[in-house]
Amino acid sequence: MLDWLRLARTPEVGPATFAQLIARFGSAPSALEELPRLARRGGGKIFVPATEEDTAREWDALEKAGGRLVLSCDPDFPEGLAALAPPPPLISVLGALPRRDMIAIVGARNASALARKFAQLLARELGEARLVVVSGLARGIDSAAHEAALEHGTVAVVAGGVDVIYPPENEILYRAIVEQGAVISEMPFGEAPQARHFPRRNRLISGLSRGVVVVEAAERSGSLITAHYALEQGREIFAVPGSPLDPRAKGANRLIREGATLIESAGDVLSVLGPILGRKFHEPETAPPAAPQIELGLEQEADHVRRRVEEALSAAPVEMDELIRQTGAEPSAVLTVILELELAGRCRRHPGNRVSWAAFPAV
Amino acid sequence: MLDWLRLARTPEVGPATFAQLIARFGSAPSALEELPRLARRGGGKIFVPATEEDTAREWDALEKAGGRLVLSCDPDFPEGLAALAPPPPLISVLGALPRRDMIAIVGARNASALARKFAQLLARELGEARLVVVSGLARGIDSAAHEAALEHGTVAVVAGGVDVIYPPENEILYRAIVEQGAVISEMPFGEAPQARHFPRRNRLISGLSRGVVVVEAAERSGSLITAHYALEQGREIFAVPGSPLDPRAKGANRLIREGATLIESAGDVLSVLGPILGRKFHEPETAPPAAPQIELGLEQEADHVRRRVEEALSAAPVEMDELIRQTGAEPSAVLTVILELELAGRCRRHPGNRVSWAAFPAV
Repeated sequence: MLDWLRLARTPEVGPATFAQLIARFGSAPSALEELPRLARRGGGKIFVPATEEDTAREWDALEKAGGRLVLSCDPDFPEGLAALAPPPPLISVLGALPRRDMIAIVGARNASALARKFAQLLARELGEARLVVVSGLARGIDSAAHEAALEHGTVAVVAGGVDVIYPPENEILYRAIVEQGAVISEMPFGEAPQARHFPRRNRLISGLSRGVVVVEAAERSGSLITAHYALEQGREIFAVPGSPLDPRAKGANRLIREGATLIESAGDVLSVLGPILGRKFHEPETAPPAAPQIELGLEQEADHVRRRVEEALSAAPVEMDELIRQTGAEPSAVLTVILELELAGRCRRHPGNRVSWAAFPAV
Repeated sequence: MLDWLRLARTPEVGPATFAQLIARFGSAPSALEELPRLARRGGGKIFVPATEEDTAREWDALEKAGGRLVLSCDPDFPEGLAALAPPPPLISVLGALPRRDMIAIVGARNASALARKFAQLLARELGEARLVVVSGLARGIDSAAHEAALEHGTVAVVAGGVDVIYPPENEILYRAIVEQGAVISEMPFGEAPQARHFPRRNRLISGLSRGVVVVEAAERSGSLITAHYALEQGREIFAVPGSPLDPRAKGANRLIREGATLIESAGDVLSVLGPILGRKFHEPETAPPAAPQIELGLEQEADHVRRRVEEALSAAPVEMDELIRQTGAEPSAVLTVILELELAGRCRRHPGNRVSWAAFPAV
């Protein structure tokens, strides 16, 4: 167990290298043993893996703070993260990681007030639908989403150690999340967040989730990195549109153009996730029938079906093919009757190939 | 010719009925002759077609105003309208109808200032690309689009007669369009616009055009009717996204969800229309190559390719499969070399399965 952490904390060993080493040497102790030889072959002079002492100290400190380590080989390692290629070797957890399906809500730190309000609304409704909202505890959209989802349990993935509160003004929110959900990280306990940690944080946000909602994101923003990971990981990507003249909407709009689902409400998210999760959040809408092919008929046929057409017509416009279906007559005959009724001023045509008695005002 | 107009102006004869009558009886005079008999069969008591006198008076008034009628059987009837099912029997034209490809820009009358500005930008750039901007001369988006496209020729389709200026505050714009483009209508000269005429006006806007851009449109708005016709007519539909919390964006956002192309600039429109019109407005982007499948290799293979990998690596991150391609080596061997270099602290991994020499800061 300690060797697993030690291998993961060795500076040159990232998740991909970690997975490759375990696959090659079978276990963390064997990999640690082989590391110096491999590094020599690569041209390195001295190779220093993480020390046993540092590793033990991290482990203790985390446990003292009420947290725990979950290794990628543990049975309770989150399914979404275990499925990543490569999975993070381990995560630190403060709080209790919910075992329900998760949905990420991410977006700009300098989000507009409107977008923050939208994120809150969305997070609350997705929480009420028993989804766990995941985000990155950043200012703006992230904070708004965590706050609104708190009572349903929410998960914050942070870029530094789980004990490092960043940004500092989120202290109250951070403590509430530890109480009512979980704060997790791939980074060592006590480590300050650095710019280069954020992509790894974002990879975990999408990895934990069944889908990622991008609320407001400029071009080249962190939220787009999260969406990029979501795509790689086969997660659903949802984006909230905005005006092309607002630079904060550029990223989300581009995602939509590239195939992300445009959403305007929690219902839009749930109607996509429902079938995937095998849950029914929403009744699907049925498509309207196609317009009928119209052909000309004869007056004699018309005489036979006139009464049926007159019975089927009503004050409200009805589609021509509905009329044809109801009367069970040839389209050409129904069309001729309608033509005659129309010329007689008794029926009226409406957009969408619909007809009604003339008493009904045209749409 | 006069009978064509007379049949079209007969109150019970809309475009569908007109087309059906011409198809059935071969000509306008024959159809006029048969009308009273058909109406009797439909249960009508007295049938009064448009009078020859009224019809001649309309024709004269239009010509006196400098306009002319174009019948759907005329060789210079606009192609887009001739292809409709049914085509309008005829249109009145004031000004000169340009013979170039057209694009409709439509949207809300109570549009936001931002959306009006966007419509102007779009109309100007589409005009510069030699497309004729078509719209409905309404307040808001329509007026903004016409104004910005004026110098490149623009076409206004109106719901009343071509001589009726509506809304009245658009008088200057109306006169400029007649000078530098055309005002057209399906309705009789002198007729005041009525609510029920607007769907027919909208059908012509989309019919004339290769595509329809919806800039800002609430649910149940006229712009959505235009988009609906565009769909029926096989025209391209473009929509400009907006915040879900802005009711004026609801319609355009829904169009995008239903398959319309999300656009943020004239370039987005042109890159779709280019291939359809056989013109090249825009260089298509190439998709990035897919991520490689990684498998484990042996150290011996690594020894053979180490130098080639070191030569191919650079300070800037390069994709792993580019590296494999450049070295011409087995993926497993390249991967092993990278692993060794990484453990030696000499190379570094980046998001997107890319690697570089360690000197380059991580992205």
